[in-house]
Amino acid sequence: MKKIGVADTMFARVDMYKTVEKAIMESKENVKIIRYTVPGVKDLPVACKRLFTQGCDICIVLGMPGKEPVDKVCSHEASQGIGQVQLMVEKHILEVFVHMDEGKNNSELLTIAKNRAHDHTLNALALLKGQHTLTPRAGQGVRQGKKDEGPLE
Amino acid sequence: MKKIGVADTMFARVDMYKTVEKAIMESKENVKIIRYTVPGVKDLPVACKRLFTQGCDICIVLGMPGKEPVDKVCSHEASQGIGQVQLMVEKHILEVFVHMDEGKNNSELLTIAKNRAHDHTLNALALLKGQHTLTPRAGQGVRQGKKDEGPLE
Amino acid sequence: MKKIGVADTMFARVDMYKTVEKAIMESKENVKIIRYTVPGVKDLPVACKRLFTQGCDICIVLGMPGKEPVDKVCSHEASQGIGQVQLMVEKHILEVFVHMDEGKNNSELLTIAKNRAHDHTLNALALLKGQHTLTPRAGQGVRQGKKDEGPLE
Amino acid sequence: MKKIGVADTMFARVDMYKTVEKAIMESKENVKIIRYTVPGVKDLPVACKRLFTQGCDICIVLGMPGKEPVDKVCSHEASQGIGQVQLMVEKHILEVFVHMDEGKNNSELLTIAKNRAHDHTLNALALLKGQHTLTPRAGQGVRQGKKDEGPLE
Amino acid sequence: MKKIGVADTMFARVDMYKTVEKAIMESKENVKIIRYTVPGVKDLPVACKRLFTQGCDICIVLGMPGKEPVDKVCSHEASQGIGQVQLMVEKHILEVFVHMDEGKNNSELLTIAKNRAHDHTLNALALLKGQHTLTPRAGQGVRQGKKDEGPLE
Repeated sequence: MKKIGVADTMFARVDMYKTVEKAIMESKENVKIIRYTVPGVKDLPVACKRLFTQGCDICIVLGMPGKEPVDKVCSHEASQGIGQVQLMVEKHILEVFVHMDEGKNNSELLTIAKNRAHDHTLNALALLKGQHTLTPRAGQGVRQGKKDEGPLE
Repeated sequence: MKKIGVADTMFARVDMYKTVEKAIMESKENVKIIRYTVPGVKDLPVACKRLFTQGCDICIVLGMPGKEPVDKVCSHEASQGIGQVQLMVEKHILEVFVHMDEGKNNSELLTIAKNRAHDHTLNALALLKGQHTLTPRAGQGVRQGKKDEGPLE
Repeated sequence: MKKIGVADTMFARVDMYKTVEKAIMESKENVKIIRYTVPGVKDLPVACKRLFTQGCDICIVLGMPGKEPVDKVCSHEASQGIGQVQLMVEKHILEVFVHMDEGKNNSELLTIAKNRAHDHTLNALALLKGQHTLTPRAGQGVRQGKKDEGPLE
Repeated sequence: MKKIGVADTMFARVDMYKTVEKAIMESKENVKIIRYTVPGVKDLPVACKRLFTQGCDICIVLGMPGKEPVDKVCSHEASQGIGQVQLMVEKHILEVFVHMDEGKNNSELLTIAKNRAHDHTLNALALLKGQHTLTPRAGQGVRQGKKDEGPLE
Repeated sequence: MKKIGVADTMFARVDMYKTVEKAIMESKENVKIIRYTVPGVKDLPVACKRLFTQGCDICIVLGMPGKEPVDKVCSHEASQGIGQVQLMVEKHILEVFVHMDEGKNNSELLTIAKNRAHDHTLNALALLKGQHTLTPRAGQGVRQGKKDEGPLE
């Protein structure tokens, strides 16, 4: 049975884990979830590293960086670490980051968070099946959490 | 007995170590503290690396980056190094950084510094117990050093 | 037979893979293509790492970063990861990134995307033949996707 | 006998090495200095790596980044490399960087350069003695090259 | 016989390799040059890595980053990679980067490019002889490609 690691934070203002869990349940895929909760996004990279050591085949990270300049830097550092872990273990980490200034109001932010967590969970399940599963949608302007942009042609 | 490494700087204007030590004492947890003092935040990553070599299970770093652009860059470089060390040793480092421009005045800055050092010490103790200890508060908009934001829903 | 890895994204709004495939066909070179599709540009580095593990001799990555500041940061993180993979495996990855704000309109963007994918595919084929294949054009102000600037003298 | 590596640049407009050497002499500490001169700050990281291979226990780097945006980027890249070397060898490098726009005039710049080189040399000697040598000054707002800020309380 | 690797790009608008080759010839030093041409600056780090694998003792990279923000980011990524390669192989890479906005006009740009390539070639030859060869000029405000600034005192 494949294992999906899910690392989330106390800092985030939405419990996106619920959405991830529900999407996995509904998919009927036979996967096991291993969860890891940390204070903030900068703690996510090492959490993933440890989840991979526990046998995870792929990870999803859930974070909500703040809107101040210092938060943008934090988010960048977190992403760099997430990138490094992927190269160390040669496995994917799908990054569900929702920036506090992405939505016009709390309601929109909540919608983006839930949709993005849902969509990237499906992407994770797809990548577990192989590197061509997402190919039919390549270059199609697909978005997670927002409306697809669609292809230019 | 678990060991907590605490690395701090001469540059900081608050002796946050005192707060960390007090929080650990009050927790009644049976942990040993190993301290390491360096000049500034950019010296913290290698201090942590050495603390892990000395057997620490987790580290807390205490720093107060300045408010000038050059200080922001220093702080970013320090954080990148702190991120790298965590991946090298597969252990957490909780970053207690208080930016000199975070408070309206010295008194507020002092309060943030003490609260953040206190809160992250409790986080460190929680993480030492396992990856699910902080899970009940996941997605709850928890802050260290400032008032919690709370969940969006 | 040499193997070229091609990693692309669902996020991009142009299916640049078609252009790559056509350019390789028309070159009459005896190379095999291995494709890998991921959600966005930040997922490309580990996709390349896995393509190299599958025996690729060189990779081409196809991505279209958005025009918002957050997209610029994503693109930078992706490029840093792509740089790291190259050093880990000591092989080239040619980066075909088309920024959404590079063209005056969709039509120009489409033209840039196709031309850049085409030109870098020829560069990849050239590099597979050796480190001096591109030397006759060194310092000539060559561009991919846009008109050559030409030499200053 | 402990060895201190000192790497400096031709780019800098002050020969800070003299100050370092004098401070070490006056300290009466029994240490050997190994020097390494490179063109600019971006050449310092590998110089330090080589100094550590030659048996140095700690390094001091002396540099004076320019005031243009391109210089700021250079300085950042140099600092990132210096950070990486420290983690590779698990030893400290004290960074004496004086930015060309730090002083109001040449005279002030010269004073900062000499003071900072002096102060960090003493820090290097202190760190060679152990991780608690600087502890009595932790959180005291200590500066190198400028007046101490002092503690907030 | 020592080997100098020279990696250059098609993107650059000046064939700086000619200058490097001439400077090495005129030096009468008994060194062998190994050249490697790539599309742009981001392809230089892995080219150097491969040149070192071919036995080079030092490398020179020749590039001309553009003047747009996206070009500045490219240049930064290239420099970070060049920094990493140096630490991996513990050998120097001298970076001859001429930014398209460094000169007031094409003629000045051409002069800077030739002078910088020339000066750094001499630096490379000096570093091949040892870590003290450049020491007499340490802290003297030496520039490559432009007039020396000179020492502050």
